[in-house]
Amino acid sequence: MSKLRVCCFSLSLDGFGAGPNQTIDNPLGEGGEAMHKWMFPTRNFQRKVMDRGEGTSGPDDDFVARGFDNIGAWILGRNMFGPIRGAWSDDQWKGWWGDNPPYHTDVFVLTHHPREPITMEGGTVFHFVTAGIHAALERARTSAGGKDVRLGGGVATIRQYLEAGLVDEMHLAISPVLLGRGENLFTDIDTASLGFHCTEHIPTKHATHVVLTR
Amino acid sequence: MSKLRVCCFSLSLDGFGAGPNQTIDNPLGEGGEAMHKWMFPTRNFQRKVMDRGEGTSGPDDDFVARGFDNIGAWILGRNMFGPIRGAWSDDQWKGWWGDNPPYHTDVFVLTHHPREPITMEGGTVFHFVTAGIHAALERARTSAGGKDVRLGGGVATIRQYLEAGLVDEMHLAISPVLLGRGENLFTDIDTASLGFHCTEHIPTKHATHVVLTR
Repeated sequence: MSKLRVCCFSLSLDGFGAGPNQTIDNPLGEGGEAMHKWMFPTRNFQRKVMDRGEGTSGPDDDFVARGFDNIGAWILGRNMFGPIRGAWSDDQWKGWWGDNPPYHTDVFVLTHHPREPITMEGGTVFHFVTAGIHAALERARTSAGGKDVRLGGGVATIRQYLEAGLVDEMHLAISPVLLGRGENLFTDIDTASLGFHCTEHIPTKHATHVVLTR
Repeated sequence: MSKLRVCCFSLSLDGFGAGPNQTIDNPLGEGGEAMHKWMFPTRNFQRKVMDRGEGTSGPDDDFVARGFDNIGAWILGRNMFGPIRGAWSDDQWKGWWGDNPPYHTDVFVLTHHPREPITMEGGTVFHFVTAGIHAALERARTSAGGKDVRLGGGVATIRQYLEAGLVDEMHLAISPVLLGRGENLFTDIDTASLGFHCTEHIPTKHATHVVLTR
């Protein structure tokens, strides 16, 4: 059964998944980058995202690898795709990731503003879905052909899918940083009533990895 | 310099410090006990709180020991002292901890309802402070005679002292459980702007220990 999975989603100690004031130079918001320090040095992040050969191994790296395992399609919120708000001013912006993004699948971007699909190098195709989160999931599941769908984020997008009861599994990495402000993942969301339990708990020097499963 | 310290304060993955619906049979609220599993088996908890000789050693135990180290007085919220709300109906309730509570110092209990002090075995004296959090802290500092004051909780009490900028150090133990509902420690409190940083990060199999310092 194809699952909708959140993977490698970093949280601060105070529950924020992104810092405030996202900009083109600061896509994770103020202070947001510090939450992801556990991930950057890992071999799988370096290989799959940065296209470099070196990197660390161990549990942090294992979780990065799992985040790409059996994924047949992705869903991203508009803000995770880019910093542009409102209507697309032109077709120049093609994501944060260069010509060959790390997805290598269909990627369904939630937006209120229609845009033609963009075919990138390496098999990534960005589709812009204006019909809402259920429509995006339906298209992603069809595209995934039985594999899982990865819900990339950001916070607002994950919260919408959580509230709709559509998320099957979440891997969170709680980092030893305080953001103070930003986008909180769980405020007013009752994960226990949604049926989630903590099914894995693997702390490392850099982050506490938990898997929440329904 | 005498510090106001929060020690061994357990949080769920979703940020709650207590479950909902606290009762006399369930002083930590629904689901709250699971957050404290890291602490119960430790040698210092068994010795200092349960008056038993056995227990585990290691980082979990070290944090329990540190929570009693150099403490000259305690401050507790009314709900941490007991389940009674409103006026004291009689003088029967003397806390959750039996005749010889684990404090062995003056303990200042915040309440809106005056009551005479209670002298317990082992040096613990419960004082009931109706003049607010600043007055309680002043009395506790005087009593502590240069040692630190431990702010025991619960969540609402810690939040009041945090918002007043009076907490110097917090040791939190993030447990691999979801509560879904309850009292959230940090909602609408900007710990970063208050000047806190994460100065220690010691994950164990049972909890992720972090020390937040200003």
